[in-house]
Amino acid sequence: MTRPPAHAATLTFDGDVDGVLRLLDQTLLPQQTVILDVRDLATLVDAIRRLAVRGAPAIGVAAAYGMLLGVRERVRGDAPPERFRAAIDEVATILIGARPTAVNLAWAVERVRDATRTAPTLAKLLAEARAIHDEDVACCAAIGAHGAPLIRDGATVLTHCNAGRLATTGDGTALALLYAAARAGRRFRVLADETRPLLQGARLTAYELAAAGIPVEVVVDSAAAGLIASGAVDLVVTGADRIARNGDVVNKVGTYGVALAAAAHGVPLYVAAPSSTFDLALADGRAIPIEDRAADEVLRVGDRRTAPDGVGARNPAFDLTPARLVSALVTERGLIQPVDEEHVKALIRPDR
Amino acid sequence: MTRPPAHAATLTFDGDVDGVLRLLDQTLLPQQTVILDVRDLATLVDAIRRLAVRGAPAIGVAAAYGMLLGVRERVRGDAPPERFRAAIDEVATILIGARPTAVNLAWAVERVRDATRTAPTLAKLLAEARAIHDEDVACCAAIGAHGAPLIRDGATVLTHCNAGRLATTGDGTALALLYAAARAGRRFRVLADETRPLLQGARLTAYELAAAGIPVEVVVDSAAAGLIASGAVDLVVTGADRIARNGDVVNKVGTYGVALAAAAHGVPLYVAAPSSTFDLALADGRAIPIEDRAADEVLRVGDRRTAPDGVGARNPAFDLTPARLVSALVTERGLIQPVDEEHVKALIRPDR
Repeated sequence: MTRPPAHAATLTFDGDVDGVLRLLDQTLLPQQTVILDVRDLATLVDAIRRLAVRGAPAIGVAAAYGMLLGVRERVRGDAPPERFRAAIDEVATILIGARPTAVNLAWAVERVRDATRTAPTLAKLLAEARAIHDEDVACCAAIGAHGAPLIRDGATVLTHCNAGRLATTGDGTALALLYAAARAGRRFRVLADETRPLLQGARLTAYELAAAGIPVEVVVDSAAAGLIASGAVDLVVTGADRIARNGDVVNKVGTYGVALAAAAHGVPLYVAAPSSTFDLALADGRAIPIEDRAADEVLRVGDRRTAPDGVGARNPAFDLTPARLVSALVTERGLIQPVDEEHVKALIRPDR
Repeated sequence: MTRPPAHAATLTFDGDVDGVLRLLDQTLLPQQTVILDVRDLATLVDAIRRLAVRGAPAIGVAAAYGMLLGVRERVRGDAPPERFRAAIDEVATILIGARPTAVNLAWAVERVRDATRTAPTLAKLLAEARAIHDEDVACCAAIGAHGAPLIRDGATVLTHCNAGRLATTGDGTALALLYAAARAGRRFRVLADETRPLLQGARLTAYELAAAGIPVEVVVDSAAAGLIASGAVDLVVTGADRIARNGDVVNKVGTYGVALAAAAHGVPLYVAAPSSTFDLALADGRAIPIEDRAADEVLRVGDRRTAPDGVGARNPAFDLTPARLVSALVTERGLIQPVDEEHVKALIRPDR
């Protein structure tokens, strides 16, 4: 396997309160490496909607910086606190509406709003976004450290979608386990579901794992069940977009089917996510809104239409994996196992 | 929904023993309707391998005509029987090797060989191929008649891959149920799994159902499980490439995952296939060879490579659905229900 060069950072923020958010445009990977300079809220919301930046943790960090971008368009640095707070509320609403499923987005926005409630300033907005960013990097490292022992030498690991360096500002969530295990000297191989419709597995997971020198092969999503049945998979690791307090997981569409197959064949499924992905207000996953995306994502591949003209599509972007199918949740605070409300609440306190 | 024009026939044979096999090139649908004139064995084997003709029953009929094409290249019409039989054996071996999983291909070839054993002539080869062709059309009609009552008014039916008019020379297997139900005046809608890597669902199933005026929407394969869980699917119908005598089904990769989801949510799964798809020599499905196809089918969509250079893929073309997940097998002789060896053997006798 040829090792591609190490890739550009998912997201950086350069400068002070008048600085620029730089996003690696993930819609163009792996063919092109294009960095988007984002200086205003509308450009960021568009980038989030069209998945130029994606992955629940990365969206959270991007949205935290987005609070600064949006507020500085609306008020001058010396505006009175009421004007600041009104702008913060307006920007928060716009950002939270950009994608409905990933809870990290709303979590990051609320955290910035809370931190700037008493004395709102642009400097304070930036400081809080930077803190969230730094914590994401540390969080990925901690997830990797807690989860790495699950990756045994010689294992074949199946993953779905991209929950890696490109989905976060650090080492990823699911893939953080792999990077940490590789650093510990363990050898293993990865099967990456290609993840239709937008091919995050083929385009992004294969790209970043290959860049790191970890052996990876791509499979079509629907091959996962048969490969699991045939004994070709030792464990499954995925990320999550939202986790309810009973441990139900909402993640990229297709996760549920993989979870059913893993459970049917005694293959463990580990879901890795920072504590900001937990939504303790939700008793279970049924109330989590599932984003329906444009039919065109299904009906086209690249520039080519697949189905005949006049035929439509349904395109739910996520699905719900019940807690009973999850062997453990891997967080920056440690493993949650068994996965149930008692054990979730013991580790993830509603203090965030 | 715009209704596309009725499509060209999957396969016709025009003329006498020096005639031509005409195949609709399914690799180009729905964008282009190209008919391949096939006059020699090598062209036919290539067409089978690259899926210009596909679907277990259609491959069987094509292979039956292929016996004539191959034998007439090798012997003159007035050759002695030994020369004929040697040519027949040689052509049979070449055809059976074209695709390893679909049993109908081997079944059709053996039937032509058996029918021409005592007095082999080109006319006899053609007559037997024509008989197999006629029976396929009748078989599809009978499958449709037996299975149509399973399609209730108002139902949403999920199907995987293409087991329709384009997979047979008649009304299809799985989709024959739908055409018969539609003729009986029942209204229903279809969700078609797109069926990566070759998109037979998006390209072929959507095409032929839309042409017939049956409402159809495309979904990515991995969305099926979540849609089933959400109550959006009332029943699943698929075809089969080979069925063991205990009722284990080998069909297009992804069928097993759909079957697991259907079983988990009490949604019936019906598998429709002619009796020629049953391989009574096999006690169960584990011995059925699963064709591994080229990695490029996974790594490319149309002309575009999805994964980075240097990354490989695994591409099993089929998977195994155990009999216990199948609610009923729908054959031209009636329904097999429950699906087990006793009920399979009662309907499908080893007399073929």
